[in-house]
Amino acid sequence: MRVFFDNAATTSLDEAVIEVMINAMRNNNGNPSSIHAEGRNARAAVEQARKQVAKLLNASIGEIFFTSGGTESSNMVLKRAVSDLGVRRIISSRTEHHCVLHSLDALANEVEIVFVDQDEAGHIQLGHLETLLQNKTHKTLVSLMHANNEVGTLLDLDAVSELCQTYDAFFHSDTVQTMGFYPIDLVKTKINFLTGSAHKFHGPKGIGFVYINKANQIHPMIDGGAQERNMRGGTENLYGIIGLAKAMELAFEHMEERREQITQVRNYFAEQLKANFDDIEFNGDPFGQGHYKVLSVSFPNSDKSDLLLLNLDIAGISVSGGSACSSGADAGSHVLEALKGNSDRKTIRFSFSHTNTLEEIDFTINKLKEITKSAMFAV
Amino acid sequence: MRVFFDNAATTSLDEAVIEVMINAMRNNNGNPSSIHAEGRNARAAVEQARKQVAKLLNASIGEIFFTSGGTESSNMVLKRAVSDLGVRRIISSRTEHHCVLHSLDALANEVEIVFVDQDEAGHIQLGHLETLLQNKTHKTLVSLMHANNEVGTLLDLDAVSELCQTYDAFFHSDTVQTMGFYPIDLVKTKINFLTGSAHKFHGPKGIGFVYINKANQIHPMIDGGAQERNMRGGTENLYGIIGLAKAMELAFEHMEERREQITQVRNYFAEQLKANFDDIEFNGDPFGQGHYKVLSVSFPNSDKSDLLLLNLDIAGISVSGGSACSSGADAGSHVLEALKGNSDRKTIRFSFSHTNTLEEIDFTINKLKEITKSAMFAV
Repeated sequence: MRVFFDNAATTSLDEAVIEVMINAMRNNNGNPSSIHAEGRNARAAVEQARKQVAKLLNASIGEIFFTSGGTESSNMVLKRAVSDLGVRRIISSRTEHHCVLHSLDALANEVEIVFVDQDEAGHIQLGHLETLLQNKTHKTLVSLMHANNEVGTLLDLDAVSELCQTYDAFFHSDTVQTMGFYPIDLVKTKINFLTGSAHKFHGPKGIGFVYINKANQIHPMIDGGAQERNMRGGTENLYGIIGLAKAMELAFEHMEERREQITQVRNYFAEQLKANFDDIEFNGDPFGQGHYKVLSVSFPNSDKSDLLLLNLDIAGISVSGGSACSSGADAGSHVLEALKGNSDRKTIRFSFSHTNTLEEIDFTINKLKEITKSAMFAV
Repeated sequence: MRVFFDNAATTSLDEAVIEVMINAMRNNNGNPSSIHAEGRNARAAVEQARKQVAKLLNASIGEIFFTSGGTESSNMVLKRAVSDLGVRRIISSRTEHHCVLHSLDALANEVEIVFVDQDEAGHIQLGHLETLLQNKTHKTLVSLMHANNEVGTLLDLDAVSELCQTYDAFFHSDTVQTMGFYPIDLVKTKINFLTGSAHKFHGPKGIGFVYINKANQIHPMIDGGAQERNMRGGTENLYGIIGLAKAMELAFEHMEERREQITQVRNYFAEQLKANFDDIEFNGDPFGQGHYKVLSVSFPNSDKSDLLLLNLDIAGISVSGGSACSSGADAGSHVLEALKGNSDRKTIRFSFSHTNTLEEIDFTINKLKEITKSAMFAV
């Protein structure tokens, strides 16, 4: 048995997504910029996908631009907002994804970067955000993620949107972890920029989009041809775009039933952990304002917990120590350090999909018991 | 019958490429940055692909970085060479692809941009290039494409490489149109940066790579996680990377036989055009130093030639007026204008693949005769 509880890192492709991609790979091979029949077929597929994404978010088709993923999208927003919209101050948080934090590093010579206070669960302190926004000396952009990728803590998008409108600041939200999991209505909730990545909702990797509210004219980050209405050069990732739209359609269509399934699996796991292990802690605010797909669990330090990730993998269970994007660097979690300081506890992020089952939880609890209680370690 | 003679715009996916991509879509869904089994499988596929690309170019694996395509690759090279390598002057040509020209526009406030002289066929005047390089006041980068995408004219990579070494300039070449069509040995030919795009050699759209010689340390253009050895943030386009490597393997393995087939088809087409039409001109240097896959043909101006593209499309033949990337903008060809000035002749780019046949040429010649000689126009 192989159990995949790392769905915040990536998800498998939905079979229906694979089907539409294969169909395009065999039958729709034109360059969307070409004006002949093959080109028009490809163009039609891209524009149909754009319409689908826009409709699901209650946005205009002219506000959706396909990119290579959430990272490119956030880079584009932050860097072009500084170069094109006169932004001279960015308010963000220490627990953003590296695509935001490292873009801020790259901008640090040009703009003032301020981090808003958070509590130990990762909640943004709205009072502090308002205090920061009251200083209107410099044109300001607020960049705060909708759900933290490591601990799942959710931002109140409406509240931050209201504050940004009141104090005339731009609002960018990295919505990569919530896209397809929570409804977003961009007419009701005013956001200047948000991002999505298909592989987080059972679409392909290497394709995403950025929503740019039509009032905000920025220039491309990738210069070239007239693709994406002159906003992003480069021949479109046609099969990826088609897959993204299908995956997003399915995610929105089945949002409630998937949410129920995921919540049931996650909550059962939390109960079983509490029942079987002492001194377990949950990070973030999983049963309050937290993403229902994430359960970040801290185990007490011991020689057994040290190799927990490795031993779970050997036992057939795929989980993560933090975000996948950081694991290559082999550094500790900047999120947990920002929220809790240094700790010798061992944290594991379990993240779920609607394809996970209660049987997989039982299997995992048993393996966890074996690993943490046994004196024998398979290393 | 449908004839696709627009293979410089894009190519159809090779069936063997589709197969490896489908296999990955079903069986290799991990995030290459994850350290568990699914992650390691994905990582292995990415690194295998990198090794394949490096081997074919006689490069090191540490010099190949996957991107979303040729446009992103050239943007990254030009912009980061300016910010990271002290480049203050870029020598390029007026007939580069828009991904280069528009990147230069974006850099025009920071660096001096100089265009080297070209003859009417598009050949770079090496004497002029040398004169420009002798001025060593500013650190210089030369950016010249290997084959022009509209007229096919080839650059002598070795000669430019020698000049750049002599005068201590960086050398970037947009090799998007030649990758997989001509052998490139990066040990023999010293180039600092080159680019490739899978969809030009029967791989998927939306994936490419940049070769960065290991002596040239630049920073990412897209900041984020530690992907691509800290050179390009964002979860990898896994299926695209796998498809790119397979397509490139096939392109190199079958390079000679494909070249023979394409050359035969193109030369037969040129003969048939000459035999059947008066006042035909070929742009560039197709039978000298020109890419064997491109035949840029100018027809005399008439009310019939005006709608040639449209009528060929209606007749089942897909060709292009210039590059696909420019057609969305509906502007004239900047390449032809730079080489020949304004002309009222009608230019059509025919570009071929090894999948094209002599029968398709006969079909096309007949349709061309019908269209240009008939008084009836299907509009």
